[in-house]
Amino acid sequence: MTDLFLQFKEKLIELYYLSSALAVLHWDREVNMPKKGVLARAQTTAALAGVLHEKLLSIKPFLLPLKSNLDDGKLDEEASIIVREVWREFEKAEKLSTDFVKELARVTSEAHATWAEARTKSDFAKFAPHLHKIVELKREEAKLLGYKDSPYNALLDTFEPYATAEEMSITLEELKDFLIPFIQKIKNSSVKVDRNILKGEFPIEEQVKFNRFVAEKMGYDLGAGRIDVSTHPFTIQFHPQDVRFTTRYDKADVFPALMATIHEAGHALYEQGILVENFGTPFGESISLGIHESQSRSWENLIGRSKPFWTYLYPELQKEFPEPFAETSLDNFYRALNCVEPSFIRVEADEVTYNLHIILRFEIEKELVEGSIEVDDLPKIWNDKFKEYFGLEVPDDSLGVLQDVHWSGGSIGYFPTYTLGNLYSAQFYSASKRDIPDLEEQIAKGEFTDFLQWLRKNIHIHGKLYTARDLVMNVTGEPLKSKYFIDYLKKKYSEIYKL
Amino acid sequence: MTDLFLQFKEKLIELYYLSSALAVLHWDREVNMPKKGVLARAQTTAALAGVLHEKLLSIKPFLLPLKSNLDDGKLDEEASIIVREVWREFEKAEKLSTDFVKELARVTSEAHATWAEARTKSDFAKFAPHLHKIVELKREEAKLLGYKDSPYNALLDTFEPYATAEEMSITLEELKDFLIPFIQKIKNSSVKVDRNILKGEFPIEEQVKFNRFVAEKMGYDLGAGRIDVSTHPFTIQFHPQDVRFTTRYDKADVFPALMATIHEAGHALYEQGILVENFGTPFGESISLGIHESQSRSWENLIGRSKPFWTYLYPELQKEFPEPFAETSLDNFYRALNCVEPSFIRVEADEVTYNLHIILRFEIEKELVEGSIEVDDLPKIWNDKFKEYFGLEVPDDSLGVLQDVHWSGGSIGYFPTYTLGNLYSAQFYSASKRDIPDLEEQIAKGEFTDFLQWLRKNIHIHGKLYTARDLVMNVTGEPLKSKYFIDYLKKKYSEIYKL
Repeated sequence: MTDLFLQFKEKLIELYYLSSALAVLHWDREVNMPKKGVLARAQTTAALAGVLHEKLLSIKPFLLPLKSNLDDGKLDEEASIIVREVWREFEKAEKLSTDFVKELARVTSEAHATWAEARTKSDFAKFAPHLHKIVELKREEAKLLGYKDSPYNALLDTFEPYATAEEMSITLEELKDFLIPFIQKIKNSSVKVDRNILKGEFPIEEQVKFNRFVAEKMGYDLGAGRIDVSTHPFTIQFHPQDVRFTTRYDKADVFPALMATIHEAGHALYEQGILVENFGTPFGESISLGIHESQSRSWENLIGRSKPFWTYLYPELQKEFPEPFAETSLDNFYRALNCVEPSFIRVEADEVTYNLHIILRFEIEKELVEGSIEVDDLPKIWNDKFKEYFGLEVPDDSLGVLQDVHWSGGSIGYFPTYTLGNLYSAQFYSASKRDIPDLEEQIAKGEFTDFLQWLRKNIHIHGKLYTARDLVMNVTGEPLKSKYFIDYLKKKYSEIYKL
Repeated sequence: MTDLFLQFKEKLIELYYLSSALAVLHWDREVNMPKKGVLARAQTTAALAGVLHEKLLSIKPFLLPLKSNLDDGKLDEEASIIVREVWREFEKAEKLSTDFVKELARVTSEAHATWAEARTKSDFAKFAPHLHKIVELKREEAKLLGYKDSPYNALLDTFEPYATAEEMSITLEELKDFLIPFIQKIKNSSVKVDRNILKGEFPIEEQVKFNRFVAEKMGYDLGAGRIDVSTHPFTIQFHPQDVRFTTRYDKADVFPALMATIHEAGHALYEQGILVENFGTPFGESISLGIHESQSRSWENLIGRSKPFWTYLYPELQKEFPEPFAETSLDNFYRALNCVEPSFIRVEADEVTYNLHIILRFEIEKELVEGSIEVDDLPKIWNDKFKEYFGLEVPDDSLGVLQDVHWSGGSIGYFPTYTLGNLYSAQFYSASKRDIPDLEEQIAKGEFTDFLQWLRKNIHIHGKLYTARDLVMNVTGEPLKSKYFIDYLKKKYSEIYKL
């Protein structure tokens, strides 16, 4: 038994190291790729994805007897969780043929390149045939995996284990019911916030320096990572000792880069907080995308858009960029940073309107997978919904349906995890304030160590020891509730907009 | 038969695409690696190398019947060459166990990181245990592969197919016999060349721009590659459409970067000249390291240190860096660039003394593998030989035995291919001048297209269609002769040094 388990673990560790190679290919594609190399990279990615799939299936002779032991209650707690989680992955993989996996990798790799070009040219028709193929493959994937009620559930489960479309619909409807009138109230407020006071001229080199400074201040270890540039900022881990993220710079505005950096550094801190000795088992992995997003959102919004944070950081920002900040007071700056205004681009949205972007995507991708709408109709459907929720006409598809990278990579069922992240983050942050009574005083002094340690101790170091559900219960004493997030928005924005 | 061959080719193409993934890991390690990620990368590299090894062995059921057909003369020319060349690789791989390959990858990946640190600190003792382990593994590799006469032959053959230590010894002795008195003559010449007139202050950013300009002028396609920075410049191809190289910048001297760029771009042009449709078979691969080096050396030395080349490029250099070049004449500049002076660092050596560096390494690594000297004695042996050949005392090991990356990566038997490259390049260049009578006039006008097309047509597009031996005979009408290289040095340097 022990021998079997050890052999099983050895196979597993090899699998994780090989997965890192796939992650390196992905990172390189996003950060470094020469244009003509894209097609060959798609082939390499597909070949390696195929190998990984085969390797995962090849653990069957070790896994099957262990699964029997698990079902018979014969494994200790650690082994139980490892076998349970690996079984989940294995079962999914077994249901998808190697050819299917390779085809999906190849199609999405090519689609990604076309998407990037289509977005630049705002040319949806260019991307449509690729997306059509991806949707077909994802429907097939759902069928192969099996599902209850909606094929969307099979896809959602790969990003947020145990979540369902029905639950998500309820949560998102609740949020929509709060958000639409709340945003209306803000619109009607006599307080007018001018985001333009944040604009100026910011040499990229100096921005790079400032972003590194902020990430390191948060606790991000540049000796175990890198910060680069890509079209769509992302974080990726090859190992807890090599966790990289990207941002994107705008010469006229420091905040696209800076807020992306704080967000991605939040993700990266989670991955750097995973215990090295657990690499190669589910204990060396994050719980779910929703929990991951709770980390990035805690840093980006709960902290990164708060008054205490900028009490500390604003003088540093003023020192680095006296033009335009020297003449602007902290209060005016804080209001501008938290300006609420319906806008086209999700990743640049304020934290109030943000979740309406998610609701729109969730509704569309669910119907797309269920087959009640078709790819060619997407621009119209997107623009109609956008008008309804945001009151804005989408001027072109690069500001609409083409803006996000996700679908081009086959990530359908991913979007709702962003909103889950927002909900979790507010609930966790409330618990951290309970445990660290002077947290906001610390933050106002630029001291983030206690908060990071709190995240490490309560979340990061456990890997997949707990499910998302259990973790939230353990850490906050309650199941996930939207009330924390809604209360947070109400309090903060009622103050800013004098509602 | 045809079906079998097609299936075999399909397997082979998958193998090549997977090899690209290994190459990406390698490139990333050299260019991007955060310090703490090195150990994990070693594991990932080892795991993937193991997969590749298994995949290569798994073609056996296809390869064996094709090999019988080859031996019976039943294959057409194309298939014959493919099967012959894959058989060579397969046979080697079959003789090395998966565990051996993984161990070698792991050990060299770790050794590389330690070497980089040891070199910085000039601390050979730090690196010695790693090198000791590598030498042991390489001796074992030679034993597993089998060899005639010297175990060094088994290793040399992996870099330069069909070459032997005995041949190399003869060639290198011949060269040594010419070089030592020739260098003495230069030393005794009344002409004194001052390399210091090339020094100045050169902002890295402007150097980067100039290096890109030169590489593109040569014909290097940045849409199918990238130029980055690494400690030891190198070229790597993932596919003919993604061929990357690195250089390294020195603020006080443009030439380390520029000559490395011209050298590496020469390698990269070879790889970009491989036919895309041949990717995945030996026709999509370069012939040998010696032939590869002939390409880089042609561009770096035969062209890149010639009067015609600088007749074109010097005004551009003067425009970009008026300080210090505006006041220096082309003739003085040309002499300074071709200053001959024994020095410590191989990669910075002039083209006359360069091959003495190779001779020293060849003699040492051959004896190391044969077991007649030991790792711990290397600094002393190196420094004694250096004194004998160059008349210089090595001040510390970073300028001596620790300077090269090769041994840390397990590349023993690699060095002599550099000298082969020099010999080939002179013989090829002579043939190109025969075929393009106004070649040097073209070069003096900055026109490199005819020369590149000549290389493409005669060398690049053939992949492994010919062996090195056949290629030289086809292209130049003669077997490899050292006379072309010796004549080239004699003519050029007799003129410069008025011998």
